[in-house]
Amino acid sequence: MLPSAPVEQADHQGDSEGRVGLPPNRIEALADGIFAVAMTILVLELHVPDLGPVVSETGLLSALKSLVPKALSFGSGFVILGTLWIGHRFQFHYIRRSNRAILWINLVFLLMISFLPFVVALIGTYGAMRVTCVLYGTTLVGALTCLLAQWLYATRPSRRLVSHTLPPEVFVGLRNRVLMGMVGYGGGLLLAPFAPRASLSCYAATPLLYLLPTRFDRYVRDDP
Amino acid sequence: MLPSAPVEQADHQGDSEGRVGLPPNRIEALADGIFAVAMTILVLELHVPDLGPVVSETGLLSALKSLVPKALSFGSGFVILGTLWIGHRFQFHYIRRSNRAILWINLVFLLMISFLPFVVALIGTYGAMRVTCVLYGTTLVGALTCLLAQWLYATRPSRRLVSHTLPPEVFVGLRNRVLMGMVGYGGGLLLAPFAPRASLSCYAATPLLYLLPTRFDRYVRDDP
Amino acid sequence: MLPSAPVEQADHQGDSEGRVGLPPNRIEALADGIFAVAMTILVLELHVPDLGPVVSETGLLSALKSLVPKALSFGSGFVILGTLWIGHRFQFHYIRRSNRAILWINLVFLLMISFLPFVVALIGTYGAMRVTCVLYGTTLVGALTCLLAQWLYATRPSRRLVSHTLPPEVFVGLRNRVLMGMVGYGGGLLLAPFAPRASLSCYAATPLLYLLPTRFDRYVRDDP
Amino acid sequence: MLPSAPVEQADHQGDSEGRVGLPPNRIEALADGIFAVAMTILVLELHVPDLGPVVSETGLLSALKSLVPKALSFGSGFVILGTLWIGHRFQFHYIRRSNRAILWINLVFLLMISFLPFVVALIGTYGAMRVTCVLYGTTLVGALTCLLAQWLYATRPSRRLVSHTLPPEVFVGLRNRVLMGMVGYGGGLLLAPFAPRASLSCYAATPLLYLLPTRFDRYVRDDP
Repeated sequence: MLPSAPVEQADHQGDSEGRVGLPPNRIEALADGIFAVAMTILVLELHVPDLGPVVSETGLLSALKSLVPKALSFGSGFVILGTLWIGHRFQFHYIRRSNRAILWINLVFLLMISFLPFVVALIGTYGAMRVTCVLYGTTLVGALTCLLAQWLYATRPSRRLVSHTLPPEVFVGLRNRVLMGMVGYGGGLLLAPFAPRASLSCYAATPLLYLLPTRFDRYVRDDP
Repeated sequence: MLPSAPVEQADHQGDSEGRVGLPPNRIEALADGIFAVAMTILVLELHVPDLGPVVSETGLLSALKSLVPKALSFGSGFVILGTLWIGHRFQFHYIRRSNRAILWINLVFLLMISFLPFVVALIGTYGAMRVTCVLYGTTLVGALTCLLAQWLYATRPSRRLVSHTLPPEVFVGLRNRVLMGMVGYGGGLLLAPFAPRASLSCYAATPLLYLLPTRFDRYVRDDP
Repeated sequence: MLPSAPVEQADHQGDSEGRVGLPPNRIEALADGIFAVAMTILVLELHVPDLGPVVSETGLLSALKSLVPKALSFGSGFVILGTLWIGHRFQFHYIRRSNRAILWINLVFLLMISFLPFVVALIGTYGAMRVTCVLYGTTLVGALTCLLAQWLYATRPSRRLVSHTLPPEVFVGLRNRVLMGMVGYGGGLLLAPFAPRASLSCYAATPLLYLLPTRFDRYVRDDP
Repeated sequence: MLPSAPVEQADHQGDSEGRVGLPPNRIEALADGIFAVAMTILVLELHVPDLGPVVSETGLLSALKSLVPKALSFGSGFVILGTLWIGHRFQFHYIRRSNRAILWINLVFLLMISFLPFVVALIGTYGAMRVTCVLYGTTLVGALTCLLAQWLYATRPSRRLVSHTLPPEVFVGLRNRVLMGMVGYGGGLLLAPFAPRASLSCYAATPLLYLLPTRFDRYVRDDP
C-alpha cells in the first residue's frame, strides 16, 4: 500500500465524491493551547502577599508560609491537568479523523478543563470542604467521562476513526487508563460529603497512579 | 497532476518569477492561540468568593450559588467561542493560500474574538440588560460577518484561494452555516432593545443549531 | 535540484560532520503563542464597571461610555500587535535556518511584545500624555528595530539564513515595510514631548499604512 | 537507508507487534504554550499606577519610576525563561521519541516554569530579600535539574531516545550548557542567605552566559 501522503492529499482535496476527512491536528492545537493557559493561570491565584509599609524577612516568610496550601493546590491541580492532557494526547495519537461528534465532545471536555482553574483556586482558598470537594470531583469525573466517550466513539467498529490495525491491547489499555482515573476521582467524589480531607487526598493521589508501569507500555516502543 | 509537496516547495522558494504564495498555517496558529486564551480567561471572571473570617459550608454554598449566573455566562460564552472556532477551522481546511486581505480580515475577526471575554463578563455580572445584549449581539454578528466575508472572498472565481476542485456543495454548505449563525445572533440582536431575556436565550441557543446534522456532513468522510 | 525533504532529514540527523541547522519552527511557535497571549490579555484592562447595588440601564450605559477610551486603546493596540505579528511572520516565511543570534534577537523582540499590554493599559487609563506616548513610541520603535536587525542579519551575503534564490525585490520589499513602520512610530515618538495627542494619532494610524498595496505584493501569488 | 517518512508511518500505525513510538511534537506544543503564557503574564504584575483624581505628567512619571524595579524583574525573568525555553528546545531538537518518563520529567519541569511568574512577582515587589532569593534560586536549579535529568535519560546508551548518530560533542555540549546554568543559579542560591543582592545579580547575569560562543556552536550550521 502506498503511504500516507497521497491519502492526506485526497483528504484535502476531497475524494471522487468531494467528501473530506477532517484531520484532527487543529483540535490538538486548540487543546494544547487551552491546557497551556489553564495550567499556567493556576499560578495567578498565588497572589504576592501585601505586607503593608513595614517589610521584614520574618514577616515575608510567615506570609509565604500561609500561602503553602494554595501552592499545594496549585501543584496538585497542575499535575492533575497534566495527566488529563497526557490522556487526551494518547487518544489523539491514534485518532486519525475527526467529525462533528468528536468536535463537540472536545468542546465539552475543554470546557471542563478551562473551568478547573476556578475549582483549584477554591480549594486553595477554602481547602477540603464538602462543597469544594464535590465540585472538584464532579468536574474531574466529567472530564474523564468525555475522554471515555471519545475513545469508545472513535473506536467502535461501525465508525472507526482510528486505524483498522489498532491492536486490541491498545484499545483496552487506553480505555482502562481512563477508567482507572474515573475510579480514583469517583472514589474521592463519593467520600466528599462525609470525609472531605480524605476526598482531597484521593484527588491528589490519583494522578500518581499514572506513574505505575502498565501492560500498555509494551506498545510504547522507545528503542529506535 | 502531481501532488502537493512540489507545489509547497515552489511556494516556499518562489516560482520562476520569485512570487510566493503564503501558506495560511501561521494564521491558524495565531487564531488557535487567541481562541485558546480567550476561551480560558473567561474563567478569570469567576472570582473565588470572599467569605470573610467565618467560613462555613452553608456560607460557601450560598456564595457559590450566587455565582451560578456567571458560570452560565462562562459556559455559554465558551460554547459560542467554540462554534466560532469550528467555523474558522472549517474554512481554513479549504483555504490554501492567504494574502493581505485574508490577513486583515482575520485581524478584525480575532479582534472581535478577544473582545468577547469582556462582553461575557458583562453579561455574567449584569445579566440580560438592553445594553449588554446589544453589545453581545453586535460583536457576534460582527465576527460572523468577518467569516462570511472571508469565505466569499476566498472562493470567488476571479481569485480563488481554495482548490479549483472545491465542490459547490461545500461552498454552499459552509456559507449557509455562517448565515445560520448570523440569523440566530442577528435575531437576538433585534430582540435586545425590547426583550433582553429572550435575546440572551437566542444567543445561548444558537450554537446548539450547529449540533444538527446537515447535508454538508456528507462531505465529511469519517470512514477510513 | 532535489527537494527539501532530504535536506531536512540531513538537518535533523546532522551532516557528515554532525553539524545541524536549527529549523525555526519552534521560534515561530513561541512567537505565535506570545503574540496570542499579549493580544488577548489586552482585554483584561477592560474591567467590568462596578455600579454598586443600584443597577440601571442608564447607569450601565454611561459606565460603558466611560470605557470607550480604554476600548479604543485596546483596539488600536490589538491592530498594532497584529501588524508586528504579520511582519514577523513574513520574515520567517523566508528565514530557513536559525542560530544563536536569531534566537536572541527574537527574545528581545518578544520582550517588547509582551511589554506592550502594559503600555496599552497605561494609554487606556491616562490617554495621550507625554510620558505614556514616549513609552509607547520607544517600545514600538524598539520592536521594529529588532525586526530590521533580524532581516538584515539573516539576509547578509556572508551568512545567508534565507534561500540563495531570494529575489532582491523581496529583500528590499520586506526591509522597506519595516522602515515604513519605523518612520510612522518614530514620527509619533518625535511628536510625543510636544504634542502627545498628535503622537498618539500617529501610532494609531501607522498600522493602516500596511493596508496599502505595494510592489512587494507582486511576489505574493494568490492565484493557484 | 530510506528516509523518515516510512519510519514515521510505522510509528503511527505501530510496527508488526503494534508497538508505537510517541513522537514528542505535542510535548513541544504544550511546552511552547506554557512558556508563551508564563513569559507574557509576567507583565500582569506591572499594574497601571492609580494616581487618584488629579493626574499630572510629573505624578505619572514618578509613579512609573517607582515601577522600575518591577520592570527590571519582569525583563530579567523574561530572559531567564527565554534561556530555559532555548535549552528545552535544543534538547527536543535531538530527542526523537518520548515515553512515560519523558512525559513526567516534562510535567515537573513545566510546573517549575509556570511557578516562576509568582517568584518573579515576589522579587519585583520585595526585591532582594533572603527568602525571595532562596525561592528564586531553588526554582531555577530545580528546572535545570529536570533538563539535566531529561538529557541524561534520553541519551543513555541502554535506552537512547535520540539518534544513534548523535555526535558525542553534541551530547557533551548540551549537557555542559545545562551545567553552566546550574553553576550560575546554584551560586546565586548559595549566596542568597548571606548576600541577597549579590544573589539576585547572579540570577540576572547567568542567562547572559548563554550569549558566549561555545564549541557546540560548530554543530549549529547556519550556512545553507
